[in-house]
Amino acid sequence: MTSTKSLPLGSEERAAGNGLISRRWLLRTGLPAVGALGLSSEMSRAEELRVPDWSSTPGLDLTSYGQPSPFENEVVRPTLPLFPEGIGDGSGVSFTPLEKLAGTITPNGLFFERHHSGIPEIAPEEHRLAIHGLVERPLVFTVEALLRYPMVTRTCFIECAGNSLFNSMDEPQQRTAGEIHGLIGNAEWTGVSLAHLLNEAGVSPSAKWLVAEGGDAAKMSRSIPIEKVIDGDAFIALYQNGERIRPEQGYPMRLVLPGWQGSMNVKWLRRIKVVSAPVHTKDETSKYTLLQKDGKSRQFTYEMGVKSVITSPSPGREPGAQGLYQISGLAWSGAGRVTKVEVSADGGSSWAEALIPDQTPARALTRFQLPWVWQGQSATLMSRATDETGAVQPTREAWYEPYAPNQLFHQNAIQAWAVSSSGGISNVYV
Amino acid sequence: MTSTKSLPLGSEERAAGNGLISRRWLLRTGLPAVGALGLSSEMSRAEELRVPDWSSTPGLDLTSYGQPSPFENEVVRPTLPLFPEGIGDGSGVSFTPLEKLAGTITPNGLFFERHHSGIPEIAPEEHRLAIHGLVERPLVFTVEALLRYPMVTRTCFIECAGNSLFNSMDEPQQRTAGEIHGLIGNAEWTGVSLAHLLNEAGVSPSAKWLVAEGGDAAKMSRSIPIEKVIDGDAFIALYQNGERIRPEQGYPMRLVLPGWQGSMNVKWLRRIKVVSAPVHTKDETSKYTLLQKDGKSRQFTYEMGVKSVITSPSPGREPGAQGLYQISGLAWSGAGRVTKVEVSADGGSSWAEALIPDQTPARALTRFQLPWVWQGQSATLMSRATDETGAVQPTREAWYEPYAPNQLFHQNAIQAWAVSSSGGISNVYV
Repeated sequence: MTSTKSLPLGSEERAAGNGLISRRWLLRTGLPAVGALGLSSEMSRAEELRVPDWSSTPGLDLTSYGQPSPFENEVVRPTLPLFPEGIGDGSGVSFTPLEKLAGTITPNGLFFERHHSGIPEIAPEEHRLAIHGLVERPLVFTVEALLRYPMVTRTCFIECAGNSLFNSMDEPQQRTAGEIHGLIGNAEWTGVSLAHLLNEAGVSPSAKWLVAEGGDAAKMSRSIPIEKVIDGDAFIALYQNGERIRPEQGYPMRLVLPGWQGSMNVKWLRRIKVVSAPVHTKDETSKYTLLQKDGKSRQFTYEMGVKSVITSPSPGREPGAQGLYQISGLAWSGAGRVTKVEVSADGGSSWAEALIPDQTPARALTRFQLPWVWQGQSATLMSRATDETGAVQPTREAWYEPYAPNQLFHQNAIQAWAVSSSGGISNVYV
Repeated sequence: MTSTKSLPLGSEERAAGNGLISRRWLLRTGLPAVGALGLSSEMSRAEELRVPDWSSTPGLDLTSYGQPSPFENEVVRPTLPLFPEGIGDGSGVSFTPLEKLAGTITPNGLFFERHHSGIPEIAPEEHRLAIHGLVERPLVFTVEALLRYPMVTRTCFIECAGNSLFNSMDEPQQRTAGEIHGLIGNAEWTGVSLAHLLNEAGVSPSAKWLVAEGGDAAKMSRSIPIEKVIDGDAFIALYQNGERIRPEQGYPMRLVLPGWQGSMNVKWLRRIKVVSAPVHTKDETSKYTLLQKDGKSRQFTYEMGVKSVITSPSPGREPGAQGLYQISGLAWSGAGRVTKVEVSADGGSSWAEALIPDQTPARALTRFQLPWVWQGQSATLMSRATDETGAVQPTREAWYEPYAPNQLFHQNAIQAWAVSSSGGISNVYV
């Protein structure tokens, strides 16, 4: 077993302070230095190729609908009801466990939840979608009817406006990456263009806004400027990652407004009313407004900011053994494509560019990685994303600057993880 | 409700015979003619916007791992054990229900299975991957060690070499699209480049082939030319669609050889032996060879051919009401990108190009669609894919030409669905 001390990495491969290695190292064919990882062991003992019990007898049967391995039963969504039982029943969140996942797709079973009055049990043949208001022909659609329309397929994230709210608190909360930043999920959605349906109904010239209303008991309702739909990219999703959308994601249908705050992507969608002005529903006045220092609230903040988080290492996913490690994380922007992700291991003193795909997707999660040599030194790991508009993820201090204390929506500040010399990781503000 | 007779579609929008409409029609903003779909109904009755019971009381709680709606409990993998109980236990298949899905990702619960001796229940901390044979340093990897390596993320299909075998039979079998063509799935896989690991072990100059062996009781073993790995795209997948790979897909790890026949993507991978020549394992001599008319068998047929299938309409997913309908299906090629999909509604007399994305992915599923006016006429629907090498999906007759009767592997012939005047659909050979 090769010692981590003998890493044959020249200084030209150091990309920034405190052990960060150039992303170019990852692109080399055959990773010349990977023999120095010190992770494998040389095969010398006969038992290494022994035949385990599970290879000796026929295994389990075919199944009609598969489930994860029982050995992965801790990979779940942590749930957080927001009120005591009997008060506000069904209002709560569950978090995508970001630190336990890889790649960019969020599997359907682990896609975060935010409910305002629980998950309605909707019989699809009884569900109707109405389009009415300032239209020539008010229309009603069954699920079956929508399934006959042309379909759009698009991979994009949905992020709750309250994601990362724990980092608005005075003291850094010791929670996992998913429990802080996991009110986001990324999926391949398939559904019907809302522009097509509005066109069929015939929109009046005085129409400027829509109100989308959900079929849950909270009747989640949001005002949407019509430009996001006409000549825009809004659609009504019937499928998520190939299969029919699940109950907690809006079965049988939800609105998807790529890049815009989660609650506007109305679940269990039952009607779209075309109107001339925003209607200031309870869901856009009592919540989802941004209280500023001057005492005024910003309303109708749609687009989610440019953001990133290191998911590995992170609390609960510590580096373990010393040696070469791969820093990995997720980056996204509601404004378009991520063009750059930088990583620091020294609390922001120096930065190295992480490896991202040549073609990053718009308004969808991008995975970044960067090799890092951890030899027991303390470190402060941070990531900073830039998007195609040139917007750069802010520091926590800069993000907070315009806001009143405890303003918690649209929190997209840089996350810092402190790695101790023992390898423990904690959430810190820098 | 607009009559389907009044479809305002000029002759310039007819793309081919028997009701096929130009794909350009789908790209228009607002679909000018969509008002003629006749699918929605004008909202005139008060009860259309009634508040259903599920909107009146708080719904179900948050869940730690989500499941599909109970109303979708027929969306399952049809299972087909291949031997009677007590003989060849655990050898069988289950099919991805293609006709019930949309988009391109196959959800993990519905990704097809092919097991040769059931699903081993592998404890991940006890599992080892060995790389040995013609190497300088035989190596053993734990799952934990592999998780520290740089990761590649890639969306690609895996297709069983025996997919579509029912269409090799003398008479067309009356099965669904999934039950005929569903030994394929498409996922975002994340794992470790096998080239990196071989480089770490140090491959001998005499090395030309690998043998990959699974940890199931069948010890599925396949010979692989080393070029697919060195300077190639082979990797060891640990994650599928974001979460750890499921037991029936090879938990805790499987080999992925993008575009190559399914059984070479060895599940429950336990060792890679580097050798100088193919070893002719039972799994590449007793099966997966192609018997030709001259009595000789073709062996080591890796790459899956260019192929497509219309999933909607198809048996079990009939058009229902007359009017405008969206033909939709999947296309793929083991050789690279799909560049064109054509659709015929008149049994191949005339063809129209279907809509596919501007950028189609290599060795991954591509969704195609084309509008079709069905007004109760009988029709024979077919799709024909072309890939970036110029290969065109063959007719059944042309595909069968070199083979002996009942040769069933690498069946990529054009599928024809006959639509009757009543809207029933059957599998036909044309």
